[in-house]
Amino acid sequence: MRTISESKCFGGVQGVYTHPSRATGTDMTFGLFLPEEARDGPVPVLWFLSGLTCTHENAMVKAGAQRWAAEQGIALVFPDTSPRGEGVADDPAFDLGQGAGFYVNATESPWAPHYRMWDYVAEELPDLVTRNFAVDADRQAITGHSMGGHGALTLALSLPGRFRSVSAFAPICNPMASDWGRKQFTAYLGADESKWHAHDASVLMFAGHFAGPVLIDTGTDDPFSDKLGTAAMASAIAQRRQPATMRLQPGYGHDYFFVSSFVEDHVTFHAEALWR
Amino acid sequence: MRTISESKCFGGVQGVYTHPSRATGTDMTFGLFLPEEARDGPVPVLWFLSGLTCTHENAMVKAGAQRWAAEQGIALVFPDTSPRGEGVADDPAFDLGQGAGFYVNATESPWAPHYRMWDYVAEELPDLVTRNFAVDADRQAITGHSMGGHGALTLALSLPGRFRSVSAFAPICNPMASDWGRKQFTAYLGADESKWHAHDASVLMFAGHFAGPVLIDTGTDDPFSDKLGTAAMASAIAQRRQPATMRLQPGYGHDYFFVSSFVEDHVTFHAEALWR
Repeated sequence: MRTISESKCFGGVQGVYTHPSRATGTDMTFGLFLPEEARDGPVPVLWFLSGLTCTHENAMVKAGAQRWAAEQGIALVFPDTSPRGEGVADDPAFDLGQGAGFYVNATESPWAPHYRMWDYVAEELPDLVTRNFAVDADRQAITGHSMGGHGALTLALSLPGRFRSVSAFAPICNPMASDWGRKQFTAYLGADESKWHAHDASVLMFAGHFAGPVLIDTGTDDPFSDKLGTAAMASAIAQRRQPATMRLQPGYGHDYFFVSSFVEDHVTFHAEALWR
Repeated sequence: MRTISESKCFGGVQGVYTHPSRATGTDMTFGLFLPEEARDGPVPVLWFLSGLTCTHENAMVKAGAQRWAAEQGIALVFPDTSPRGEGVADDPAFDLGQGAGFYVNATESPWAPHYRMWDYVAEELPDLVTRNFAVDADRQAITGHSMGGHGALTLALSLPGRFRSVSAFAPICNPMASDWGRKQFTAYLGADESKWHAHDASVLMFAGHFAGPVLIDTGTDDPFSDKLGTAAMASAIAQRRQPATMRLQPGYGHDYFFVSSFVEDHVTFHAEALWR
């Protein structure tokens, strides 16, 4: 693992690190914010999975989460959204290929060799982060934005006991019924839709539940509302009686101005679960 | 004037606008955050001047100032740092030409036709903003980062009565004695150093003072500390007995992780002056 940069930030350290990944077979870069408290021992951690076109950097510099993570004594991890580099399959569209890994393990050509983002964010990176930094593997929570909200919800619903709380900003909730999902799942997972169920948060929520609190914020003026499947998730949460708060935020869009407006609420929400 | 985007943000609106500028003879783009209170009438305004390589966008998306401006009911303006476009002189170096206007009116070739950033930020843009938006011309304050800190301090010291308070993050304080100054002033203003005095904040502070509070934060680990002239400003402030707070922040660098860490303090500092 190589340190790209370490910058003091709200009394803690915002680092950027690169490492060769077994999961993706490429070098992967991630951001890690450690609050001041991490000097004295392991701290709880909140994962932030990002959306289409993002790298590890977007949420790290735009979401404003460090302010509140510092106040709560919580670490933040900002993974990349796909493998990258020469020799890694890509597509001219912004919503497929590099920057659009959708947090799945691809089984189809040409994606299968490197697009193993599920293994990367579910196993390899947590292992690496908790072994190398003062981060407590027993106190993890997860959030994400858009495609990263899809990732956060599917990971939380698929890994019982891993995360104490889950939240999302404008998440893709029902990718099997969306242009942000069907195209990518067909490419990465193949045409057999039965293999997609494991990566559709609304399907997972209908089939099970999450053993902790859920918080989902979506803007009423989100220009991609037809792609998010918010109603499917709302219905699933209501039918399963999942402890959850879903908020439709009046006038907000899909951008980081929306995310940053509510990131204090989300970090505080996770802190309550992590420090309980 | 043309609206590029308007996004809801912390209950207010983060807009981006483009207009043809008389001062620069180019189109200029700026960001404007209006808090919710601006619906009911003019609000105080804090100017944020940005540093080398920045556009209107960097501080707007990275500094995290909107959170605190919303809380204080204050507008924020994020001007660009130079004229841009084809037909506008430029230089391959990052610290001269486009993205590096240094907030002066250039008199020398090839810069003189468009590089009139002093007139733009001191006159044209304030006039445009206060005429077109619910922004109170009588309650203005100014801050900036690096080259923008230079701009904020020189404007505040040169325009008595305009700004109620001035602050800066890692400002270039003494450009006449710095690689970030001598090269640019020679290019923009010519070799006669007597014409540079009006644009050196430490020279201006030695010669006069600012009729309001001053707040300056600089990181002890700033990699550009040899270019900032912090000591010259500290000395000027002490000799003139200028009401001011200068803080050397332990471990912080020159980046937006530094700026965002202290932006709450700066917005609160200005709010106290603006709402008094």
